[in-house]
Amino acid sequence: MPVGTAATVKGVSTPQLADTGAEMVLANTYHLHLQPGETVVAEAGGLHQFMGWPGPLLTDSGGFQVFSLGNINRIDDHGVVFRSPRDGARITLTPERSMEIQMALGADVAMAFDQCPPYPASEAAVAEASRRTHAWLERCLAVHDRANQALFGIVQGGCFPHLRRESARIVAAMNLPGIAVGGVSVGEPVEEMHRIVREVGPLLPEDRPHYLMGVGSLRELAVAVAEGFDLFDCVLPTRLGRHGAALVGGERWNLKNARFRHDHTPLDPSCPCLACRQHSRAYLHHLIRSQEMLGRTLLSLHNLTTLLRFTRAMAQAIRDGCFAEDFAPWEPASPAAHTW
Amino acid sequence: MPVGTAATVKGVSTPQLADTGAEMVLANTYHLHLQPGETVVAEAGGLHQFMGWPGPLLTDSGGFQVFSLGNINRIDDHGVVFRSPRDGARITLTPERSMEIQMALGADVAMAFDQCPPYPASEAAVAEASRRTHAWLERCLAVHDRANQALFGIVQGGCFPHLRRESARIVAAMNLPGIAVGGVSVGEPVEEMHRIVREVGPLLPEDRPHYLMGVGSLRELAVAVAEGFDLFDCVLPTRLGRHGAALVGGERWNLKNARFRHDHTPLDPSCPCLACRQHSRAYLHHLIRSQEMLGRTLLSLHNLTTLLRFTRAMAQAIRDGCFAEDFAPWEPASPAAHTW
Repeated sequence: MPVGTAATVKGVSTPQLADTGAEMVLANTYHLHLQPGETVVAEAGGLHQFMGWPGPLLTDSGGFQVFSLGNINRIDDHGVVFRSPRDGARITLTPERSMEIQMALGADVAMAFDQCPPYPASEAAVAEASRRTHAWLERCLAVHDRANQALFGIVQGGCFPHLRRESARIVAAMNLPGIAVGGVSVGEPVEEMHRIVREVGPLLPEDRPHYLMGVGSLRELAVAVAEGFDLFDCVLPTRLGRHGAALVGGERWNLKNARFRHDHTPLDPSCPCLACRQHSRAYLHHLIRSQEMLGRTLLSLHNLTTLLRFTRAMAQAIRDGCFAEDFAPWEPASPAAHTW
Repeated sequence: MPVGTAATVKGVSTPQLADTGAEMVLANTYHLHLQPGETVVAEAGGLHQFMGWPGPLLTDSGGFQVFSLGNINRIDDHGVVFRSPRDGARITLTPERSMEIQMALGADVAMAFDQCPPYPASEAAVAEASRRTHAWLERCLAVHDRANQALFGIVQGGCFPHLRRESARIVAAMNLPGIAVGGVSVGEPVEEMHRIVREVGPLLPEDRPHYLMGVGSLRELAVAVAEGFDLFDCVLPTRLGRHGAALVGGERWNLKNARFRHDHTPLDPSCPCLACRQHSRAYLHHLIRSQEMLGRTLLSLHNLTTLLRFTRAMAQAIRDGCFAEDFAPWEPASPAAHTW
């Protein structure tokens, strides 16, 4: 899922977004609650109407942003009190309130309100956040209107295997239409993330989508798909694009680099995106050097297209029975590590 | 002509630009000379290839930007010496150098290197600039390769009718494929501009395109078309768009205004652009409030589409024999003043 924080994937129009191969898009409850407010979105007929995206949409719970961006005043079993970064107003977010907001936003999938502990955190702190996350999930279920929107639960447990196993068991038992693993990609070493993915993946119900939150890069996607994950979100492709970086052949290229000044070849000849189809590295270099909006948009389109092509290639490899050979284990020698 | 200063109409991809109805696009020689340099553009096969725009392109001479943006050291009959705003390097621009750069850029139309006097300027200063402009035009003609690129001459003369008439007579006598009127929209009162247009328009050769440089707004376009002008360029639609303003019904709307917060109707129901077709005023308001790139792009697309639809409507009215009735004189009572 490309990330459309404020009901827009930054710099990308909806027809351009469709051209990247995107299907499902994520929007941030926290940002939309602050601006324009869920009332405005609901008036428009919901997020699909408001942002002009007919495809599937998922909203996160707002929890992650409150914990990472917010000016937190208090966290307790009731919920979280924080100050709005816009006007300093005191805002209380609880499981009930998150459900209310997400139901008003009207995406296809809402996420349970969870507590995502920072990394590193003590075992006691992670256990407390997990306990609270499970209690909050029950409260989310009690108020959420499941007839009109799917609700996914979130597994927490930090880097403690027994807490992850316990959380996976509790959340899996709730019989939800999808299950997410949170608290990854929060600063832990990449080996830790792989360990969590390998630990938790096999414990999740096979017949429901598995969503690994905030991931990722090509390697992390391949590692997680090998463990049965289906759904991901990451700001990386658009954030890199806005900063002038392109994902090519498994590398990150800084298009500002002088080596592209006279390079009139396509960015990635194998890529069908607008940037690669119609423009050259020299032109993209020029746009980034000139701080032109179009450069940021074209690189965002390219990076989104690359990640989405990669996920489709993995899906095809699974259907063709060659996923293990081509994509997993993700080693320098594996074919995908060369091609992407 | 939408303005693509640095070989990009700001924030607009080439397919989006084609969707606005744009045909011919202007690029700035001054900016392209500084970055990426005409050598890079020529290597790419010229500006069409470099920016991915197959339609007609025109480059200005660089003179206007030197006089309005540059750090001028010296102007004399030889040319202009200025300091590069990028690195402080001394750059000399002469008629010959401007032709050389524009031939390397390879647009379909090059503009003669002229001296555009500021407003207000004394009669003596304007007469001097005109004399120099005519002498420079001869030097441009002496070095320009007319087989591969059209060269348009520029009429100067400020707000002095006899200087305008003299300049028009001299430039018209050169038998060029197109003729431009410069030194308008440089700060003079709008009535002065109308007077110049009405004075000069009828003196230009009927069988060549007439280009009114740096204009404009709907009213100025209508006034100039009534006097036989065919070609215009203006940064207004994209600049307004980037600043959150939309051209609707002859007015400029600031989309940041709170009155649009709950307005879920299209920006302009009669407009076929992406912003109007797929989004609402409330969504555009939200994007502008959130300082999202997409808001700037969508409003630029809308404003370009509006100006280009207006020019097509005038062309159709001329063919239908109702131009005078619908568009000229441009008065509050004329139909176009209501519809646009």
